[in-house]
Amino acid sequence: MRTFRLVIACPDGVGIVARVSNFLASYNGWITEASHHSDNHSGWFFMRHEIRADSLPIDLETFREAFAPIAREFSMEWRITDSAQMKRVVLLASRESHCLADLLYRWRSGELACEIACVISNHDDLRSMVQWHGIPYHQVPVDPQDKEPAFAEVARLVHECQAEVLVLARYMQILPAQLCREFAHRVINIHHSFLPSFIGAKPYHQASLRGVKLIGATAHYVTEELDAGPIIEQDVVRVTHRDSIEHMVRLGRDVEKRVLARGLRFHLEDRVLVHDNKTVVFD
Amino acid sequence: MRTFRLVIACPDGVGIVARVSNFLASYNGWITEASHHSDNHSGWFFMRHEIRADSLPIDLETFREAFAPIAREFSMEWRITDSAQMKRVVLLASRESHCLADLLYRWRSGELACEIACVISNHDDLRSMVQWHGIPYHQVPVDPQDKEPAFAEVARLVHECQAEVLVLARYMQILPAQLCREFAHRVINIHHSFLPSFIGAKPYHQASLRGVKLIGATAHYVTEELDAGPIIEQDVVRVTHRDSIEHMVRLGRDVEKRVLARGLRFHLEDRVLVHDNKTVVFD
Amino acid sequence: MRTFRLVIACPDGVGIVARVSNFLASYNGWITEASHHSDNHSGWFFMRHEIRADSLPIDLETFREAFAPIAREFSMEWRITDSAQMKRVVLLASRESHCLADLLYRWRSGELACEIACVISNHDDLRSMVQWHGIPYHQVPVDPQDKEPAFAEVARLVHECQAEVLVLARYMQILPAQLCREFAHRVINIHHSFLPSFIGAKPYHQASLRGVKLIGATAHYVTEELDAGPIIEQDVVRVTHRDSIEHMVRLGRDVEKRVLARGLRFHLEDRVLVHDNKTVVFD
Amino acid sequence: MRTFRLVIACPDGVGIVARVSNFLASYNGWITEASHHSDNHSGWFFMRHEIRADSLPIDLETFREAFAPIAREFSMEWRITDSAQMKRVVLLASRESHCLADLLYRWRSGELACEIACVISNHDDLRSMVQWHGIPYHQVPVDPQDKEPAFAEVARLVHECQAEVLVLARYMQILPAQLCREFAHRVINIHHSFLPSFIGAKPYHQASLRGVKLIGATAHYVTEELDAGPIIEQDVVRVTHRDSIEHMVRLGRDVEKRVLARGLRFHLEDRVLVHDNKTVVFD
Repeated sequence: MRTFRLVIACPDGVGIVARVSNFLASYNGWITEASHHSDNHSGWFFMRHEIRADSLPIDLETFREAFAPIAREFSMEWRITDSAQMKRVVLLASRESHCLADLLYRWRSGELACEIACVISNHDDLRSMVQWHGIPYHQVPVDPQDKEPAFAEVARLVHECQAEVLVLARYMQILPAQLCREFAHRVINIHHSFLPSFIGAKPYHQASLRGVKLIGATAHYVTEELDAGPIIEQDVVRVTHRDSIEHMVRLGRDVEKRVLARGLRFHLEDRVLVHDNKTVVFD
Repeated sequence: MRTFRLVIACPDGVGIVARVSNFLASYNGWITEASHHSDNHSGWFFMRHEIRADSLPIDLETFREAFAPIAREFSMEWRITDSAQMKRVVLLASRESHCLADLLYRWRSGELACEIACVISNHDDLRSMVQWHGIPYHQVPVDPQDKEPAFAEVARLVHECQAEVLVLARYMQILPAQLCREFAHRVINIHHSFLPSFIGAKPYHQASLRGVKLIGATAHYVTEELDAGPIIEQDVVRVTHRDSIEHMVRLGRDVEKRVLARGLRFHLEDRVLVHDNKTVVFD
Repeated sequence: MRTFRLVIACPDGVGIVARVSNFLASYNGWITEASHHSDNHSGWFFMRHEIRADSLPIDLETFREAFAPIAREFSMEWRITDSAQMKRVVLLASRESHCLADLLYRWRSGELACEIACVISNHDDLRSMVQWHGIPYHQVPVDPQDKEPAFAEVARLVHECQAEVLVLARYMQILPAQLCREFAHRVINIHHSFLPSFIGAKPYHQASLRGVKLIGATAHYVTEELDAGPIIEQDVVRVTHRDSIEHMVRLGRDVEKRVLARGLRFHLEDRVLVHDNKTVVFD
Repeated sequence: MRTFRLVIACPDGVGIVARVSNFLASYNGWITEASHHSDNHSGWFFMRHEIRADSLPIDLETFREAFAPIAREFSMEWRITDSAQMKRVVLLASRESHCLADLLYRWRSGELACEIACVISNHDDLRSMVQWHGIPYHQVPVDPQDKEPAFAEVARLVHECQAEVLVLARYMQILPAQLCREFAHRVINIHHSFLPSFIGAKPYHQASLRGVKLIGATAHYVTEELDAGPIIEQDVVRVTHRDSIEHMVRLGRDVEKRVLARGLRFHLEDRVLVHDNKTVVFD
């Protein structure tokens, strides 16, 4: 079922819901899902409506014009998107296949509603798997001594295919600040720890050394500061003294896959709103 | 913060949210929490608003009169309650203390917003614990050959203290049909299994016999059919071959406590709506 | 690291551990993992040792001969297996791909140590995916009016490829009793509910109807009685009133995949012992 | 059932299990539970046996003498304890009651096998609850300008009642280094975060600020370095943007109670072995 998603963030106040609801009702909009959140701490209000496209007599352009005065009145940051216009996604990976394979499987089986424009990797290992799915594969090796040319090529590819979302599916490279800024809140990374524990490299080694009893994974938007961007989704799994680092890595892979897939799905369905480096996720 | 809770269930349609939001906005009602649910299967719509009491210039009686026409128009089942008018609860227990002690602790520490009118038990074991909390304790022994006099006395006590909610905190007796009907959707039981598995007596024995790898607990409203009422909350905990029935009982106690406390809190905060023997829980 | 796995079940008694430990120590066997379990209820004792193959100066045949007297003395049911001799597995599927794709991915990435002899399906949908992995695919359509010829062909294929383990990866067909008996405790099924809840067909529909707050999946050995065999592994995921049956199916797929993969791995690593229709799982 | 618990840690090698099993078998010791762990990283071996006391013809003193040569041969750190000699515990608390109330309830209902010698608090709030349980209550106020006299009095009380275990049940004070050293691996603290995240004060505020999707609690042995001692047990609970800091505190209390009770039970049953600032927990 095709829907429109109206996503709003604005300073809290009386009458916002009424105005928006009235507006939708005046067009006989059939709301299939509605979510609100008042954040007492920041004094902001967040709102998401999902509306049956076939219930509205107007197109998105007309909607945007008609809604603009309300948006101005309440100083809203807002957008309306169409579920039929799927977002264009570029996946970036390195050698490890588990997250990439999982996303490709979910995409192919219709669980992730997006277009996958291409896969970019600094290695060639995953080419065959990607191409079997009918998706272009670009190897862009990264020279550790001079990463700039590689990232210029990554940026060129991303622009060429008009990507709207970047997913770092265990890419193992730090994106340049320029790309982070350009795609603010549109680059999703999976970090293989329960952030803010074990920032940086080799989190399972850190976890084993510290002797924790749970390990986790975190899907977050990438910002210029490493592993410090807004958290979209997290989960954990229990470990014991019996689990070597290799076991932890294997257990962790399942959590990473699950958390990244959920985080990406929330993003694709316009369920994530960012404010003050934190997310509101209307799941 | 004192709030009013407006809880609505009605056949789904266009404009319900707008009408209710407008109504609240026309009184400058400050909505602190709003939840909606459209059930595609049944075609019903469920809604709960929490409104700051000090933002409304009218009292509940005036609210009810003013809102009645809207309620009629949309054939709403509805109520509005005042968080300052705490519900009167009667707890029923037998010999096992874990659920009762947990509820009393949470009540005493302010986590469960209710009045506990009294505790009724068929045994005398828990009297001292209850009385230390300053709560009346009534022992009403149940004669297995003739339960009627006991249940007549239970009904008398329940009416005498004007109970609004009954909680079977491991009461181990089947309430008579008459009381179930009178307190429909207001008697909460904790069943020590993950229903619908292991209905009836000795669920941990049944679970051990079947060799399940998780055991659970279920908080549900009591209906005349045993263990078949609407489920409010459930949870599970992992068990292994190492866990004897005694271990399962101990592990299960923690789940039972947690699930009953959550279920009761949802009920006390008017977060549970019942339709077609299922619940909508706006947690 | 190549290991031998010594798996023992016998009536409990004093001195079993000492005899087995002595035996292993007399050959300088390096034990990398040891697990014991005394079941008070049945009076049986269960034991699993994992021993570095390169620490033993004898081969498995010699081990079996030397150990036989001890086994007889304690009336042991026992086996010793070699991690280097991977079990031959036949996967059976229908149209739904999630469990099959997950197992193939884990097998390909080295997480499931087995040989996959072939995939058998009553449909042709999954052929391309299977063949990309280099695994033979046999379509054996099942005529609902006369299933016998199909199951005769399945049995022939299973025998032909010398299968040691059958995995019903959402096969959606009930195996004939003869095959269940022949492969007792070697046919693993994934049932899409938290057994014993919702036995039989359409468990997510049953779950939605009953209004449960958690849905689950169960990996179990197949016996002649439907969905009643020994449970190997189970897990659950939380659902709410917002989750339609379609959502439950999607959430359930992730649990099914995880539970089946864990259950199969336990089996492949000889971690599962069956007694009295229950399992001891030394994970 | 009265048992002896033989707990051993030593450098790994061939024949340890055989020697210990033989020793126990030579006295006809009936082993009810046995756990082993080889740590590949450190090259150490850990072992715990639980033996029916009535199956051994010798007392603990004789056992210790007879076992000493084996212990020397393998350079074992070891102890044997008697389940009938319950450990003497001192609980330290501040104003918050949830952990203390939970431990007292579990102790009273027989779930925690220990003697509770007394409760020490820097405040007087919890006196009535403690004394209702028949346990002495000592208020030892801590002067923030000069904490030494208070801790001298705490140490005096602890020595006077011959405490073997100290439990910091949300004590909110940092124990002096001297007491930490004296009771090394015998002081258990509950930290209200999923360590190593959010070390130090106000972890729920830190968690809210960072926008994590799960909050947790950690039971650990106290060392001189704040929140850095060996972790015994951890758990988490899911939070969302809807959960204010106050909600997090309430949700966290349930996790803290559960984690501390489990951690303490493991300690009381001699299930925790410490090596290299990490624990082996034979649960």
